[in-house]
Amino acid sequence: MTKDALLKILDDVASGRLSTADAAGALEKLPFEELGFAKVDHHRALRRGFPEVIFAQGKSVEQIRGLLEKLWPGGEPVLVTRLSEEKASGIVKDFPDGVYDAVARTFHRGRMPEKGRGSVVILTAGTSDIPVAEEAAVTARVLGNTVETIYDVGVAGLHRLAAAREAFDRATAIVVVAGMEGALASVVSGLVRTPVIGVPTSVGYGAHFGGIAALLSMLNSCSGGVSVVNIDNGYGAAVVATLINRSGK
Amino acid sequence: MTKDALLKILDDVASGRLSTADAAGALEKLPFEELGFAKVDHHRALRRGFPEVIFAQGKSVEQIRGLLEKLWPGGEPVLVTRLSEEKASGIVKDFPDGVYDAVARTFHRGRMPEKGRGSVVILTAGTSDIPVAEEAAVTARVLGNTVETIYDVGVAGLHRLAAAREAFDRATAIVVVAGMEGALASVVSGLVRTPVIGVPTSVGYGAHFGGIAALLSMLNSCSGGVSVVNIDNGYGAAVVATLINRSGK
Amino acid sequence: MTKDALLKILDDVASGRLSTADAAGALEKLPFEELGFAKVDHHRALRRGFPEVIFAQGKSVEQIRGLLEKLWPGGEPVLVTRLSEEKASGIVKDFPDGVYDAVARTFHRGRMPEKGRGSVVILTAGTSDIPVAEEAAVTARVLGNTVETIYDVGVAGLHRLAAAREAFDRATAIVVVAGMEGALASVVSGLVRTPVIGVPTSVGYGAHFGGIAALLSMLNSCSGGVSVVNIDNGYGAAVVATLINRSGK
Amino acid sequence: MTKDALLKILDDVASGRLSTADAAGALEKLPFEELGFAKVDHHRALRRGFPEVIFAQGKSVEQIRGLLEKLWPGGEPVLVTRLSEEKASGIVKDFPDGVYDAVARTFHRGRMPEKGRGSVVILTAGTSDIPVAEEAAVTARVLGNTVETIYDVGVAGLHRLAAAREAFDRATAIVVVAGMEGALASVVSGLVRTPVIGVPTSVGYGAHFGGIAALLSMLNSCSGGVSVVNIDNGYGAAVVATLINRSGK
Amino acid sequence: MTKDALLKILDDVASGRLSTADAAGALEKLPFEELGFAKVDHHRALRRGFPEVIFAQGKSVEQIRGLLEKLWPGGEPVLVTRLSEEKASGIVKDFPDGVYDAVARTFHRGRMPEKGRGSVVILTAGTSDIPVAEEAAVTARVLGNTVETIYDVGVAGLHRLAAAREAFDRATAIVVVAGMEGALASVVSGLVRTPVIGVPTSVGYGAHFGGIAALLSMLNSCSGGVSVVNIDNGYGAAVVATLINRSGK
Amino acid sequence: MTKDALLKILDDVASGRLSTADAAGALEKLPFEELGFAKVDHHRALRRGFPEVIFAQGKSVEQIRGLLEKLWPGGEPVLVTRLSEEKASGIVKDFPDGVYDAVARTFHRGRMPEKGRGSVVILTAGTSDIPVAEEAAVTARVLGNTVETIYDVGVAGLHRLAAAREAFDRATAIVVVAGMEGALASVVSGLVRTPVIGVPTSVGYGAHFGGIAALLSMLNSCSGGVSVVNIDNGYGAAVVATLINRSGK
Amino acid sequence: MTKDALLKILDDVASGRLSTADAAGALEKLPFEELGFAKVDHHRALRRGFPEVIFAQGKSVEQIRGLLEKLWPGGEPVLVTRLSEEKASGIVKDFPDGVYDAVARTFHRGRMPEKGRGSVVILTAGTSDIPVAEEAAVTARVLGNTVETIYDVGVAGLHRLAAAREAFDRATAIVVVAGMEGALASVVSGLVRTPVIGVPTSVGYGAHFGGIAALLSMLNSCSGGVSVVNIDNGYGAAVVATLINRSGK
Amino acid sequence: MTKDALLKILDDVASGRLSTADAAGALEKLPFEELGFAKVDHHRALRRGFPEVIFAQGKSVEQIRGLLEKLWPGGEPVLVTRLSEEKASGIVKDFPDGVYDAVARTFHRGRMPEKGRGSVVILTAGTSDIPVAEEAAVTARVLGNTVETIYDVGVAGLHRLAAAREAFDRATAIVVVAGMEGALASVVSGLVRTPVIGVPTSVGYGAHFGGIAALLSMLNSCSGGVSVVNIDNGYGAAVVATLINRSGK
Repeated sequence: MTKDALLKILDDVASGRLSTADAAGALEKLPFEELGFAKVDHHRALRRGFPEVIFAQGKSVEQIRGLLEKLWPGGEPVLVTRLSEEKASGIVKDFPDGVYDAVARTFHRGRMPEKGRGSVVILTAGTSDIPVAEEAAVTARVLGNTVETIYDVGVAGLHRLAAAREAFDRATAIVVVAGMEGALASVVSGLVRTPVIGVPTSVGYGAHFGGIAALLSMLNSCSGGVSVVNIDNGYGAAVVATLINRSGK
Repeated sequence: MTKDALLKILDDVASGRLSTADAAGALEKLPFEELGFAKVDHHRALRRGFPEVIFAQGKSVEQIRGLLEKLWPGGEPVLVTRLSEEKASGIVKDFPDGVYDAVARTFHRGRMPEKGRGSVVILTAGTSDIPVAEEAAVTARVLGNTVETIYDVGVAGLHRLAAAREAFDRATAIVVVAGMEGALASVVSGLVRTPVIGVPTSVGYGAHFGGIAALLSMLNSCSGGVSVVNIDNGYGAAVVATLINRSGK
Repeated sequence: MTKDALLKILDDVASGRLSTADAAGALEKLPFEELGFAKVDHHRALRRGFPEVIFAQGKSVEQIRGLLEKLWPGGEPVLVTRLSEEKASGIVKDFPDGVYDAVARTFHRGRMPEKGRGSVVILTAGTSDIPVAEEAAVTARVLGNTVETIYDVGVAGLHRLAAAREAFDRATAIVVVAGMEGALASVVSGLVRTPVIGVPTSVGYGAHFGGIAALLSMLNSCSGGVSVVNIDNGYGAAVVATLINRSGK
Repeated sequence: MTKDALLKILDDVASGRLSTADAAGALEKLPFEELGFAKVDHHRALRRGFPEVIFAQGKSVEQIRGLLEKLWPGGEPVLVTRLSEEKASGIVKDFPDGVYDAVARTFHRGRMPEKGRGSVVILTAGTSDIPVAEEAAVTARVLGNTVETIYDVGVAGLHRLAAAREAFDRATAIVVVAGMEGALASVVSGLVRTPVIGVPTSVGYGAHFGGIAALLSMLNSCSGGVSVVNIDNGYGAAVVATLINRSGK
Repeated sequence: MTKDALLKILDDVASGRLSTADAAGALEKLPFEELGFAKVDHHRALRRGFPEVIFAQGKSVEQIRGLLEKLWPGGEPVLVTRLSEEKASGIVKDFPDGVYDAVARTFHRGRMPEKGRGSVVILTAGTSDIPVAEEAAVTARVLGNTVETIYDVGVAGLHRLAAAREAFDRATAIVVVAGMEGALASVVSGLVRTPVIGVPTSVGYGAHFGGIAALLSMLNSCSGGVSVVNIDNGYGAAVVATLINRSGK
Repeated sequence: MTKDALLKILDDVASGRLSTADAAGALEKLPFEELGFAKVDHHRALRRGFPEVIFAQGKSVEQIRGLLEKLWPGGEPVLVTRLSEEKASGIVKDFPDGVYDAVARTFHRGRMPEKGRGSVVILTAGTSDIPVAEEAAVTARVLGNTVETIYDVGVAGLHRLAAAREAFDRATAIVVVAGMEGALASVVSGLVRTPVIGVPTSVGYGAHFGGIAALLSMLNSCSGGVSVVNIDNGYGAAVVATLINRSGK
Repeated sequence: MTKDALLKILDDVASGRLSTADAAGALEKLPFEELGFAKVDHHRALRRGFPEVIFAQGKSVEQIRGLLEKLWPGGEPVLVTRLSEEKASGIVKDFPDGVYDAVARTFHRGRMPEKGRGSVVILTAGTSDIPVAEEAAVTARVLGNTVETIYDVGVAGLHRLAAAREAFDRATAIVVVAGMEGALASVVSGLVRTPVIGVPTSVGYGAHFGGIAALLSMLNSCSGGVSVVNIDNGYGAAVVATLINRSGK
Repeated sequence: MTKDALLKILDDVASGRLSTADAAGALEKLPFEELGFAKVDHHRALRRGFPEVIFAQGKSVEQIRGLLEKLWPGGEPVLVTRLSEEKASGIVKDFPDGVYDAVARTFHRGRMPEKGRGSVVILTAGTSDIPVAEEAAVTARVLGNTVETIYDVGVAGLHRLAAAREAFDRATAIVVVAGMEGALASVVSGLVRTPVIGVPTSVGYGAHFGGIAALLSMLNSCSGGVSVVNIDNGYGAAVVATLINRSGK
């Protein structure tokens, strides 16, 4: 429930268009509504500024569909992440107004209005990091940010960073998505005055340990200004970037 | 060298008060200056918005003193972190205008002018997390932020968070410093619309692995909006918070 | 063999209804019975108060069926855990009095009589933790406990805990099933005066390490009163809860 | 927030006594209010049944003394754990009614009245595990339990367990303290119908990893009924045992 | 090549039945024979007392068949381990004198003559550990040992060990195969005066880490006389047991 | 930025041709300009001496085909690594001049001219290590080296090394590919005066951890002259060997 | 419990000499009785063939002295391991018939009579491994073995092994003590027909992890016949070697 | 064993000069003889091109002095590494012709004659990495290389690398010494056509794990041409660099 929707209810009460009993009925489900298998947190959009997001991994198609139906009535944007193509095929047809992105593995209905002090810039070190970056990009767009993406800027070819310079000037937050040795986050951070959110990816093999090498690299960045989210967590980086981009507006 | 100082030089050149040769002399050390054992990055304040910081751990008193002398002439603020009381005793007397903080283990000369859209709020879960929080607090203040600290807000007594509500409203960035199971970052993040920077601490024992338990807990936060820095890295959290607080100003 | 069954045999001996030879025949298999591939511990129900449980993972359908047949004659309840739907299909039809639960992946025949000082309350942090919680719930019910389940109580929306307050008052043991950062165990423990048994789950990704993050979080709980079982071990938590609930009765 | 309180707000809006903006502000804070039931926590002893305990490690003598003074006025028992002899020497003299135990590294004033359905039995595998066991024993006694200790019952000489049989019959909770391979918890649990709380200790070397070997051993116990606390956490085991011993009284 | 075969060649040379050139031809391949993809160590049986064994995992059916052909001519026994049923189906038919064991996943032709001072006793803690134990049993039999197996002797019901007492008296080496917490090796070792070879298995889940928990448990055995081989390495344990059983004969 | 360029900017400021703001903007970008020497990197082959290589894992067939087309025009050799047979089948037919190697999982077009001071010798410890060794061999050949391969030289039969002696004399770099305990790298290094590049492989099981055991073994080599690349990284070892073989020519 | 004992109980029940309740109590304790065969353990030396050994690490001087006095009366040999020079100084003077070895850090009184089929040969890879080897040597001698030691046989100089050949012929067990990459165990095992007991040592640095690298190396030995004890556990290796050397005598 | 030697044995058997038993004994030892080519190793300097080096850590002053005396007679250079100032004080005075370097913690007598195709360039990322770099530098100089050192070239200020460009042109091997996130090795390697040897250092804290973060970063370098030695192993890197620099001369 957005603040606008809340004010609308209160206005209706004030003007007598809505009884206090009906309003109470609408509001008391605010903290949560028992869905049986999940509790929908309608109050979240109000409290945190963005809607509940459905993490599809480990949920059945039925559970996801149920949540989508419960969450949509208010018309607030809804985002599903980690939605495999297989599961998506059982969902997309029921929500024709929604958009499925096979690379980002996201599905969403609606989008929050544009709101932010600048843009969210998303970089990847390699081609294989793109799906994680796209999860971040879709999330950031749904949450109302202007997004710019610059992919395949490896540490092994730093001159490619030159092309990103102007985008950096527009950014309020930079998301660096990198697997392998994850050094790009440090390098970028050393060049800018914008907070860098590192997303280590599981791209690598052997002593990469599914992303641990990149994670440790980013946590040990010798260049101040880097903070880190979980491996492959494009969604989480986008939420952090959104909160930064919005703050003070 | 801050941007203000740079513009001052260029103005003097434009107005003829300074010869181009003298200006070049002042500027040509911008990239870095060779100290023998270290390279001072004079360009950093200009490029990144904050001065080079001296990480004292593993440096000799002589090296620290040498760096302090090289960095000060321009009158820019200088910060030393991880400075043990023992080493500090060999340094403080030579820089009477500097301030040593024994809890934070920091030493600094000067302070950047206040600049930021709100305040940086720093929380700790327990009493033992305070030294790391103080490192963050001193750093943030030296970098020109308004800082508010709220200590000993454990997950085992969540009602204590109520007292922090108003501070949260003023914050553009919240730093949560926590050892043990590090759950406080998730809990706080679920209540606010401000980016939370988690600092896991090494406070704990046994299967805490010197901070790993808290680090993993924060990285796996189920509540969007948390990003993480290295264990005990109060300084790093403060830099991220500063960049967030300043951005757009 | 339950204590009741043992006393019945001894009464029959005392009253002359049963010869000592026949009684010896019934009792001499008490320590264990050799099945070739397994040893059935007939003495367990007597000694420990609950019957031997068949851990199906890694056992063939034939082995499971053989154990079910050997264990049933006495009419004592029998429980199979970690039984995949595929294996279950080869077993269920031969034991029409048994019940298979596809979510909990359990199969059982019979149930111990209700016995306990209160109820066993089982919580999950998220929807994906439910299968582990259901393994705990079925086990606890078969072992003769009253069970209450409250699912999807995340740390990111703590107000949802309010609904659990009354259940907590009825509990002699609370089982908290949580993946991700596993913070729910600490939070719940801080609110109650009942022992909390934490079950970390493998729900998560990246630096979650298949449940290690949640496990460490629970082991490092800063709120006294939490003890922990292995990752995804719903069965084990239910046994601990049963022993607590029964003790003194 | 009760429904009555909610209706009151809405009535005030309907009647014009409250502006919609103020009502929205009040409703936006709901999650904090929902936490209200935790607010009586000035009275932790009331809510959880035992007093706050001071973990001395990482705290200065001054901090510990300050906490002791603040917590005592009500006359409730106070317990300090992990108090080194060095720190204790600075504290004991100021609280002549307190008792310092150099093996357990505990200090306490007062003791809760005896309350429990049976006794708490504490075992160690070896001699070197005794300090951790004593921390558990002192804690359990201060919290009002009858405690029985049986030390040096190694897996390499299982016949020693025979001596513990009668104590097991009196126990409502058994604490097993063991380093090395930590197998004692499994062995004991296989013989009793009482919950076993395993405390792995850091006693060992090489591939023991400061207690990890014993911790993993206990978490993987093939004998149901074992739950585990952190390495060397005698205090935590005692709290769990206390909650079990007391429940239902 | 066995020592008997070598002496036969040398006798033929001494008696003139074999030319030195032909003998040299036969012997010069002793160190190894180049197969293109592998080098067959014909000298091994002579030097170490047992033939080269083919580890089938990671080898193609063609490679295994090639090695089997190269190794057989001398009539020495040949053993293949880790041979999946799928691969075996492509091999068995070509070597009708060989024996495939689907549980042990072994294939062998021939068997070394019985030779040893006693028997090799193999125990498992659970039913799921049997495949590893059978790999050990087949290997030990092929290498000429008398083997006794006793399965499903768990630590959770130690009385089951009683049945093994007489076998222990006949053993020169005891192989203990155990997953979960792996405590059986310590327990058995505390009861006998025979070397115990521990084989941790990957049977377990969660914090078992594919056998690490059992491995660490065995390495930290508080009961002297246990040495350990790699996880699931039934073959390796059998070789060690064979060398012990044979030594001095 | 050269001093001349700096003076030019200042002259322009002094003469009013450049505003101080623009000059400041130019100077602020200094670090990017300093990186200018990397800018000719459209010509990686020129700078580093070998062409960009396509790491196929995690890339789609379309992406690989696109890269192959873009990289070929200049006629420089192109190499694809980690190309599964499945993906290769979708690529090979479009580039009939290319060569796919199913063991090495490589595809390449063209080959650099022979250039090097000696040969690159590649050894494996076992048969299962051959695919990694072949990746190294193909890479080294495409990059213009003479390659010699010697496979299945295990530590368990060191006499097999004798055959490699002459090859060692021709080598400027020796690549040792080994799984299991990885000891071969140390052993070889102790016999030669040529740099040894160790490639640990994931061949093993249990406490091998997918190659970690071999990796640690090589990193801890007690015999100077061994350096190491990532697990299974045959490609990387070949690049290092190439740079060594070429240097000074 | 024998069948006779069982019939006796039942007869007593039938005749009324024993109440059914008492009979049930007796039968419930069965597992304890089944463990009875371990009860003669007051005589560990009798059962296991060697005396109890005192692990001094973590024990006070008083505890060690007390144990020495209690264990000696029978005149059986007594061994103390891990006894630092500092602690030893407080003990040696009270037991003038004992021998302290500062390198091995052992103290012993008496020695078991020579008994064994051959000798125990102990090798080290380097000079720094000698203290662990000496712990093994002293232990083996006290336990009645003939011991031969050959030190500093590194993998980097394998020719030194030649000198060990004759000792290998006399050995019934070979103990290989090695830090760094621990490859010596594999190499030796490949040359002999005697069981090899590997003792990884903590000698190394960096990615050696206090002995883990050597431990993993030995566990993954590609050469059959190696089993392993804990890091730095010279004592444990000697016990295993003793049991091997003695068996069959 | 050459074929001639084999024929000689067989001839002796044929002629009766050698019994078949003795011949069998001789042939059984073949593997040892095959190792013969390593036997000239009394002359390690001859075989490997550099003298034996004494690793002082874990050796007593007496042992070091003894080795220095034994190794010097031939007048070949001798190098001691990891020699603490404390130990050095007991050694330096006895070898007045030797040189102790307190930063590198090395001591050496003599130096090999200059020999190499270019120079060995050694870089550090930070000031704290200098001791490891100096160990590499001293070692490389003693082994006869021209060495150039460039310190404090961090990834956070890449423009500092510009100064190293000319040195790179002279290098045949580049040693990159870096702690923290260790990214410098990748960055440098991307700019040059010279093999890069990465030396991760233990400089860092928290999730740096004593150098593991940097080690993993270097092993996962996305820029071909980097190989790695153990953490803090400056000596090892210098040996590799020496072998590269010398090869072909």
